[in-house]
Amino acid sequence: MEKIVSLAKRRGFIFQSSEIYGGLNSCWDYGPLGVELKNNVKRAWWRRMVQERDDMVGQDASILMHPRVWEASGHLEGFTDPLVDCKQCRQRFRADHVTGKTCPECGGELTEPRNFNLMFKTFMGPVEDQAAVVYLRPETAQGIFVNFNNILTTTRKRLPFGVAQIGKSFRNEITPGNFTFRTREFEQMEIEYFVKPGTDEEHFHKWVETRYKWYKELGISPERLRLRPHAQDELAHYAKACVDIEYYFPMGWSELEGIANRTDYDLKRHAEYSGNKLEYFDQELNEHYVPYVIEPSAGADRATLAFLLDAYHEEPDKDEIRVVLRFHPELAPVKVAVLPLSRKEPLTDMAKEISQELRRHWNTEYDDAKSIGRRYRRQDEIGTPFCVTVDFQSPEDQTVTVRDRDTMEQTRLSVAELVPYLREKLDNR
Amino acid sequence: MEKIVSLAKRRGFIFQSSEIYGGLNSCWDYGPLGVELKNNVKRAWWRRMVQERDDMVGQDASILMHPRVWEASGHLEGFTDPLVDCKQCRQRFRADHVTGKTCPECGGELTEPRNFNLMFKTFMGPVEDQAAVVYLRPETAQGIFVNFNNILTTTRKRLPFGVAQIGKSFRNEITPGNFTFRTREFEQMEIEYFVKPGTDEEHFHKWVETRYKWYKELGISPERLRLRPHAQDELAHYAKACVDIEYYFPMGWSELEGIANRTDYDLKRHAEYSGNKLEYFDQELNEHYVPYVIEPSAGADRATLAFLLDAYHEEPDKDEIRVVLRFHPELAPVKVAVLPLSRKEPLTDMAKEISQELRRHWNTEYDDAKSIGRRYRRQDEIGTPFCVTVDFQSPEDQTVTVRDRDTMEQTRLSVAELVPYLREKLDNR
Ligand SMILES: [Zn+2]
Ligand SMILES: [Zn+2]
Repeated sequence: MEKIVSLAKRRGFIFQSSEIYGGLNSCWDYGPLGVELKNNVKRAWWRRMVQERDDMVGQDASILMHPRVWEASGHLEGFTDPLVDCKQCRQRFRADHVTGKTCPECGGELTEPRNFNLMFKTFMGPVEDQAAVVYLRPETAQGIFVNFNNILTTTRKRLPFGVAQIGKSFRNEITPGNFTFRTREFEQMEIEYFVKPGTDEEHFHKWVETRYKWYKELGISPERLRLRPHAQDELAHYAKACVDIEYYFPMGWSELEGIANRTDYDLKRHAEYSGNKLEYFDQELNEHYVPYVIEPSAGADRATLAFLLDAYHEEPDKDEIRVVLRFHPELAPVKVAVLPLSRKEPLTDMAKEISQELRRHWNTEYDDAKSIGRRYRRQDEIGTPFCVTVDFQSPEDQTVTVRDRDTMEQTRLSVAELVPYLREKLDNR
Repeated sequence: MEKIVSLAKRRGFIFQSSEIYGGLNSCWDYGPLGVELKNNVKRAWWRRMVQERDDMVGQDASILMHPRVWEASGHLEGFTDPLVDCKQCRQRFRADHVTGKTCPECGGELTEPRNFNLMFKTFMGPVEDQAAVVYLRPETAQGIFVNFNNILTTTRKRLPFGVAQIGKSFRNEITPGNFTFRTREFEQMEIEYFVKPGTDEEHFHKWVETRYKWYKELGISPERLRLRPHAQDELAHYAKACVDIEYYFPMGWSELEGIANRTDYDLKRHAEYSGNKLEYFDQELNEHYVPYVIEPSAGADRATLAFLLDAYHEEPDKDEIRVVLRFHPELAPVKVAVLPLSRKEPLTDMAKEISQELRRHWNTEYDDAKSIGRRYRRQDEIGTPFCVTVDFQSPEDQTVTVRDRDTMEQTRLSVAELVPYLREKLDNR
């Protein structure tokens, strides 16, 4: 992890938030390469989960929602951690992190555990009283449940169908940590997939498979990926079954995504609290019922971190070590680098012209600083799949070489062939 | 506006947030078509402002930042509205919205105006005391200024260069309104473009032009677009100049985007408050200086609303009225609809197969419900540029017709030609 944190900072993937002010605990900023990587992860999810499927639509709900939503969902009452206070030094600890009955800091006496709600609370409008309290959503899921009727009416979808959403959520974790793995502000990629009761187990297993495949197809090593079914006593009270997709992070096996069978719990609760029916009319059976829901809930930051960690490779390179990020081309933040062999004008002019053309299609870097060997190494280190080199022969016969990050082979081709060549390698669709 | 609000709800562009609980004032959710439209707007911005330019990089800072950021930026002290309270009925009003010296509701006596800060405040960590107060950012811009050194070091960019960011911001507006135009939670698309002092005026004018062109190229009618330079007494104290790009919304000319010359104010303030130098080393002059910054700051929700309003057209169609959204193809939420002329199996099978293939490239709808005329009208109403119709001839000779939303012309072509044909029309790059 140390190596990745350092590379992430050095190359502009991830910075500490507000670093010039000493940072803000557990908040991180995505830098120029990080934002491209994370956007690519989100797009790869949206493309496969929404665009390519006839049974899925998207939505984007606001972060601030009506406070009754969190009563219905159970978050207001149940989304808590038990905390204890030290009566002497006034520090707070999670009750399950304190082993004895005394303060781990000063040995003072501790209070009885009290429940602390993990939702961030704020006030809407000019008056700070209880009536104005709203919460930053702790999950995006509820935004889908409360829109169930609207989506059903406007899309005329039939069961089974799902709603996908990407967005920020906030949890006032007592102990965030492990770089971007557990943070108080984080981005989720959630699906609520509505099915006919009785078909839920079958769809649940299909979704576990679909989501597992997604990580594998985008390049995560299968040996660092595993499924962990929750034991019966681990399940949330509303869940009939849950499987975590875990990745072997540097701190050990940890959750990338959870797929849960949430039954009809959420729709029924919102129906009860809002007084609105949230039902589906089954034309074949000619009856109304409340669908069951399968929820594959992934973390965009965790997925991004896993793709970054998994891409990291060190290889011997003469007397040095070659660091290369073997990103799937779809995820690589920079797709092509254009490198003139020297800073002579016919070469730089031609290279700049080529990079302007390539930019229209893909995120492209132009680099003419330092030796070509160092520039290749720099592109390897940020995971650029292809380097286009403009050499002394190039202005003469309008050819360039394309270097493949993984095979390190160089192919000479004409400038006119460049876009189709790269399109086949990069877009494969 | 009424028509758009109604169409937006009926077709799944925009719903009221938490509607089943009576809604949450000024919060809106993007439905299945709305999220695609807004994502396309954001992508069109990123593509032209970041991907296609050699002098721009992106970033994505967290919403929660160190509270000192807002001291340095001046928001903690100055980002306020003056409010008055009614001593009798206890209601609050913006001082500039009260004409007399008595309460507009009950005629009671009003207090002196007091400043109310527009930042949403929350508490990080388990203890709600002053030390734990953090704010939801009221603008994304400051996230770029505090990362200035990190970005300079990791990208090795030379002046002039810019940093672009898309993300949510929050302002506790006293009087939000006009649908998604002014909301308390909103999404910004901001650029901070760093230039050598002395070249700032030239770059300022270039950016006004670039941003105006962006709206026009993506289809906004030039007659509903205008530039409004701020008068000297309207300028924020840190700004040397500001021009608004305004759109003629149903409620009148209103700001879509502001382009400001913020001088070196922000970098200098953060340097002062953090104790870190935020300077650029100019290799040619062999000296350090603080760059000036030009800020084109656009609202993603406002832009989306403007594109939606501007696309709306009503046309006579026999005895009825044809409603058509003339979105630029790049912005249209659905690019292609595949419509079998009848529900006979050879037609639906073929149409489903075609739509599966098209989905790999573009957001595609399959629709076999009701008459073909109604289905065309439905696609017109959501702005789908092309409808592919599978008719009785199709299974026989593997041809389909493609109907153009704007010309309403139908072109017959072979299934094999479909993707290249649409690629040329839709991707034009
Ligand atoms: Zn203690
Ligand atoms: Zn009153």
